[in-house]
Amino acid sequence: MSSRHALAPARSVDDHRQRIENLLRPLTERGSERVPVTAALGRRLAEDVYSPLDLPVFRNSSMDGYAVRADSVAAVPVTLPLAGVVAAGNRGETPLPEGAALKVMTGAPIPPGADCVVPVEDTTSDGSTVTIEKSRTAGNFVREPGTDVRTGELLAAAGTLLHPRHIAALAAVGLPDLPVTRRVRAAVLTTGDELMPAGTPLLPGQIYNSNGIALAAALTDNGVDVVSLAHSTDDHDEFRARIAEATAAADLVFTSGGVSKGDFEVVKDVLTPLGGEFGSVAIQPGGPQGLTVVHGIPILSFPGNPVSTMVSFEVFARPILRALGGLPPIASVDVPLLEPVRSPAGKNQFLRGKLTSDGVRLIAGPGSHLIATMAQADVLIDIPVGITELAAGDTVRVHPL
Amino acid sequence: MSSRHALAPARSVDDHRQRIENLLRPLTERGSERVPVTAALGRRLAEDVYSPLDLPVFRNSSMDGYAVRADSVAAVPVTLPLAGVVAAGNRGETPLPEGAALKVMTGAPIPPGADCVVPVEDTTSDGSTVTIEKSRTAGNFVREPGTDVRTGELLAAAGTLLHPRHIAALAAVGLPDLPVTRRVRAAVLTTGDELMPAGTPLLPGQIYNSNGIALAAALTDNGVDVVSLAHSTDDHDEFRARIAEATAAADLVFTSGGVSKGDFEVVKDVLTPLGGEFGSVAIQPGGPQGLTVVHGIPILSFPGNPVSTMVSFEVFARPILRALGGLPPIASVDVPLLEPVRSPAGKNQFLRGKLTSDGVRLIAGPGSHLIATMAQADVLIDIPVGITELAAGDTVRVHPL
Repeated sequence: MSSRHALAPARSVDDHRQRIENLLRPLTERGSERVPVTAALGRRLAEDVYSPLDLPVFRNSSMDGYAVRADSVAAVPVTLPLAGVVAAGNRGETPLPEGAALKVMTGAPIPPGADCVVPVEDTTSDGSTVTIEKSRTAGNFVREPGTDVRTGELLAAAGTLLHPRHIAALAAVGLPDLPVTRRVRAAVLTTGDELMPAGTPLLPGQIYNSNGIALAAALTDNGVDVVSLAHSTDDHDEFRARIAEATAAADLVFTSGGVSKGDFEVVKDVLTPLGGEFGSVAIQPGGPQGLTVVHGIPILSFPGNPVSTMVSFEVFARPILRALGGLPPIASVDVPLLEPVRSPAGKNQFLRGKLTSDGVRLIAGPGSHLIATMAQADVLIDIPVGITELAAGDTVRVHPL
Repeated sequence: MSSRHALAPARSVDDHRQRIENLLRPLTERGSERVPVTAALGRRLAEDVYSPLDLPVFRNSSMDGYAVRADSVAAVPVTLPLAGVVAAGNRGETPLPEGAALKVMTGAPIPPGADCVVPVEDTTSDGSTVTIEKSRTAGNFVREPGTDVRTGELLAAAGTLLHPRHIAALAAVGLPDLPVTRRVRAAVLTTGDELMPAGTPLLPGQIYNSNGIALAAALTDNGVDVVSLAHSTDDHDEFRARIAEATAAADLVFTSGGVSKGDFEVVKDVLTPLGGEFGSVAIQPGGPQGLTVVHGIPILSFPGNPVSTMVSFEVFARPILRALGGLPPIASVDVPLLEPVRSPAGKNQFLRGKLTSDGVRLIAGPGSHLIATMAQADVLIDIPVGITELAAGDTVRVHPL
């Protein structure tokens, strides 16, 4: 057999991203689910929500004070007989006797026959009478039903991202649960005989599996529910079984590793017969990429080098996932380079950089294994295809991590 | 008994906030806890974390290709005998025979005796020999141990807010768990005979309890763990029992309701004998406020009107809680008012507003019961003490909700 590799033309970054967006866009139609109002913070309403009741539900007092008829307190000071006390929570069935006062607490029902409240500060009382020192007009310190929201009125529109103030309003009308957009559910499946879980002593040739944990964190950080995080060795049958589980559990599957030009490329070898397309994208790091759809579930296959995996996620998946989750887009900015950069002509290179007030400096080199070093970066520096050299002071586009 | 109320001078908003900050500041010393690296996203490192190993752990290939000695490929093309294959995960114990090549996969150990890798693209092979078409020098496509991070080197400093890139780095060195700052743990305790849970049909005089759900959402949204969400009627013994539970479970307790001038003020009545200070703060809405420390646990007592509760949280608790949780501060901005505003002279008024590109407009009136309407607001408009009138076009400070 000959292992000479034809130089198939690499797909552009934009082309590949567009193909992924086309595959993922239908996930917006994944429907809605009901969640308890106590768990709805940060979710997005799937439907318009209308008030099931008037708020206030009943006429009530906005002050601690005395419910009276305004015409009883037209001339002040005046001393009225005290006919009782209405606490918040009272049923409001005690009517106000003609010419008397009823003590009311904030939020308590206005008794039938009363039309205003005199705040306690403007009164004195000996327990059986109350002396009113300020006259009031009908409606003073009375909250009328429906003045906040009326039955059937729109409380929050479909698409609303639920902040605490929305939760407060939706809880105030007694809604126990809310219709929210179902989050995208992703499965993460790493591959490689050499990857070991944390806590295992490493044998020669082994490394710790960071890709699964890192992809799961990146997905969570971008509004995706990670429903499965699994690992497969390079055994074809094992990988096939894990893929079946992942596609059954999730709307979308991410794999890492096994997509390159080696002799043991489990992801490429298993998914190609299922219709997967594996090839080169003109990106560095992260050139080898795969896309497969199994039973309608898109599988994005990233290369296994840790930095390649993370850069692939940032470039190909993060923008569309944020859009699907209704999160604000990440704003790219143009800043000066603080040092010269070289880049391969045929690649869109994404270098790790750190922003300062003067511009962006490089964090280490382009090596796709420099995952510890990448923690110090806060942006990806985007060097387009065709640019091979940039000088300090040249403007580059950077994408915040 | 006389219910005339002395007009005790109201405390200023800044004074009250400062007292709360002084009470809460010691919560920064609440120590750390270890969480699995898979659950550490968004947490803050409590200690410097150093690498327990070199990364790369061993010399490995950065390409799929052929491990050779550079002096074997000094003159090209050259055909070398193929001595085998080293996959990723191999122990790297097969030495390279003199003058031969060993096929290596990306990430596989460089065999003893080899000093560079020729990428597969620059070769042809018939399975028993490989013909090399490009010469390489020692070190080409070889990743040396410790070039990413060395054993004992700082990986991430105490105080680092853990983004996916940090999780990736910390997972790559095999750390199963991480020391993170313990989050503030809060208990929320609402009061009031009239408050009913969602799903219960309302009897006359009853309303739905939104304060608990809304405060819990606001706390969660600002980096606080809500460890308890409970309700008490206005019965003193019941409230006392719930407070005992809350202070046992949490670092910090929030109550709503029962702090005003009515006859049934369970929070004030139970907590005052325990050293609680209840009084007026020069704020509208939210004037009646209480502060108590029970067994070292601060209890912040907010008034029960839903808007008062939320404004109290925004003004008195949110800034310090965000600081304690290491979250970025909420930036206030000065913008033009789009309509005239009146304000009581002695109060720092916080009106609900909505920002537009031209300035800020009011959302409904100052009523502290307008909780459904508040959902439409995105800022609080801050009208200082002493200002009684502002015209359209005047500049006001607004605080994003």
